[in-house]
Amino acid sequence: MMRFSTLMKHPADWMTGADTDSAIVLTSRIRLARNITGAPFPGWARKNERMAILPELRDKVETLPEMKDAFSHQLSELSSVQKQVLVERHLISREQAARSEGSAIVVNRDQTLSVMINEEDHLRLQSIRSGLHLREAYQLIANVDKELEQVLPYAFDHELGYLTACPTNVGTGLRASAMLHLPGLVISDHIGQVIQAVGKLGLAVRGIFGEGTESLGHLFQISNQSTLGESEEDILNRLERVIQQVREQERNARSKLLEEDPQMLADKISRAYGQLKYAYVIDSKEALTHLSLVRLGSDMGCFPKQAMELCDSLLMDIEPAHLQHKAERKLAPEERDTMRAEIIRSRLQNLSSPVINFITS
Amino acid sequence: MMRFSTLMKHPADWMTGADTDSAIVLTSRIRLARNITGAPFPGWARKNERMAILPELRDKVETLPEMKDAFSHQLSELSSVQKQVLVERHLISREQAARSEGSAIVVNRDQTLSVMINEEDHLRLQSIRSGLHLREAYQLIANVDKELEQVLPYAFDHELGYLTACPTNVGTGLRASAMLHLPGLVISDHIGQVIQAVGKLGLAVRGIFGEGTESLGHLFQISNQSTLGESEEDILNRLERVIQQVREQERNARSKLLEEDPQMLADKISRAYGQLKYAYVIDSKEALTHLSLVRLGSDMGCFPKQAMELCDSLLMDIEPAHLQHKAERKLAPEERDTMRAEIIRSRLQNLSSPVINFITS
Repeated sequence: MMRFSTLMKHPADWMTGADTDSAIVLTSRIRLARNITGAPFPGWARKNERMAILPELRDKVETLPEMKDAFSHQLSELSSVQKQVLVERHLISREQAARSEGSAIVVNRDQTLSVMINEEDHLRLQSIRSGLHLREAYQLIANVDKELEQVLPYAFDHELGYLTACPTNVGTGLRASAMLHLPGLVISDHIGQVIQAVGKLGLAVRGIFGEGTESLGHLFQISNQSTLGESEEDILNRLERVIQQVREQERNARSKLLEEDPQMLADKISRAYGQLKYAYVIDSKEALTHLSLVRLGSDMGCFPKQAMELCDSLLMDIEPAHLQHKAERKLAPEERDTMRAEIIRSRLQNLSSPVINFITS
Repeated sequence: MMRFSTLMKHPADWMTGADTDSAIVLTSRIRLARNITGAPFPGWARKNERMAILPELRDKVETLPEMKDAFSHQLSELSSVQKQVLVERHLISREQAARSEGSAIVVNRDQTLSVMINEEDHLRLQSIRSGLHLREAYQLIANVDKELEQVLPYAFDHELGYLTACPTNVGTGLRASAMLHLPGLVISDHIGQVIQAVGKLGLAVRGIFGEGTESLGHLFQISNQSTLGESEEDILNRLERVIQQVREQERNARSKLLEEDPQMLADKISRAYGQLKYAYVIDSKEALTHLSLVRLGSDMGCFPKQAMELCDSLLMDIEPAHLQHKAERKLAPEERDTMRAEIIRSRLQNLSSPVINFITS
């Protein structure tokens, strides 16, 4: 079985896929909520009821061919830092990390597939792919779903579809989402408009860590709101079309900034690099903003292509739990800010100064 | 006679004196106000009265041995940018630049001595020296004063002393001041205390461009307030003692910051360098703050010794009129911000990254 340290050493497959394709849409994520008939939903169940069903669920998940040599743990076996690391990697939810008794997590080797057991629902199947590949991500998880359905009695109603703990998930149980990098829309102050327009189409726009979280690093998640009355195919199609439109709007916003105020753009990108390269104390929020701008600069050709991947891996590595896991102890916020700056400075050593090729002077 | 372009090409002697001695006290400046008996004070005189006395005054000043090959011009011959440049170099006052008819400026070759003719008073003799050298600066100007007194009928009252346009200058006509770099006291938030204490001793603390101006780049001027009832010697002694004390307080503030929060100090110094090196748009105020911190870093050994001189010459060269003189045209504020950033980036090319030797990590 895969150990926690192994999980940590390797970035997830979807984290290293940064290329032209994922310059704006970083990742596509699919989550299916499934429950076992006859057993109370885990959120309402008592601890012993959750514990009773856990071994069977875990066994079925671990024996999936996709889960060969997987990372599989009861959450109660993990330290709070380890659990926070899994949250930062989008492998478990904050809620599951907080209330971990009787629940487990199984993650495949390349961290593209994960199954939360006894979170709000008995099973939450998740797949992540880099770039805009909702359908591929869906295919991946649909296969797992089919395999599990053959060996587990899913709670399914022929009128409603899959039954879930929260009514907002009933039906397909499908939540599809993409993470988008939208600095152009933020800088040009058009992001509010876009969020509103997307909302009117029945889709949700949220910050980087889901519901109720602030947008950091100009990163936004767009996802479907309704799970009922539409086929999986329809949900994915509609979401994909909207994401393509937002991607186009982001491209337009960038072109317009480039045309209308290249000095300002050069200043933002170049200074962001300067701040990251020279800070000795930096909080997460500030670091994410600068990384976002270096990422933008990379897409604009100011940095070599590797810069984007560097930014994407740093996005994760400078999160509080990742820092504490690396330090092998709890860190006070000030210690984290110092360590974060150190890591960034060291990783940026091989990234040369920006070449601002879009202004003439 | 020296041309304006020659004046511009050469930094003043006191601007290039940056060394340990002038790390905190950048310059010492003495100004004497003198008037001619029987002629109305220039501020109250009509233009033709000012014009009538100007040739004689100018002739006497130009023929001083100290003023060989001097820069000598009627202010009305100079463009508004040229006049602003002289203000930025502390060679004429803002008031004189604004109301220039019938007045003139004579500056010696190394820009350490200057005489304003028909400003508020008929003559304002000024000397600047780098470092804390009030007495030497005074000696320099006292010689000029003596020479002029032999050939011009000074307005002098045996009770009051030298008569001046403004009663605050009557007596010695002496204003002695020093420019101090006090980032330690500003960062540690002790500057308010110091300003108050200095004020109680009858001395004034002001920003970089005199009365009513904001402190920029952590630079402060300390000067005597009263000119009456004290000998020149007493004024200079008292001022020097206070300046030495403030210098000591600045040193203590730096040591304390170094001891109590070296990370914060490293962060400020290093980031200031990063901002200057990577900005494409920067206003004067921000640039002065960053230059101040690099200057501080230089004194702390983070940069080679030349860095201090680089900062001091940039302090002047990034001022609005200096930029416009270099560009040979009027510049809109946004153009200045872009040009300022360009100049700073180019000058910093030979200044290597800070070496933060006071933190262990």
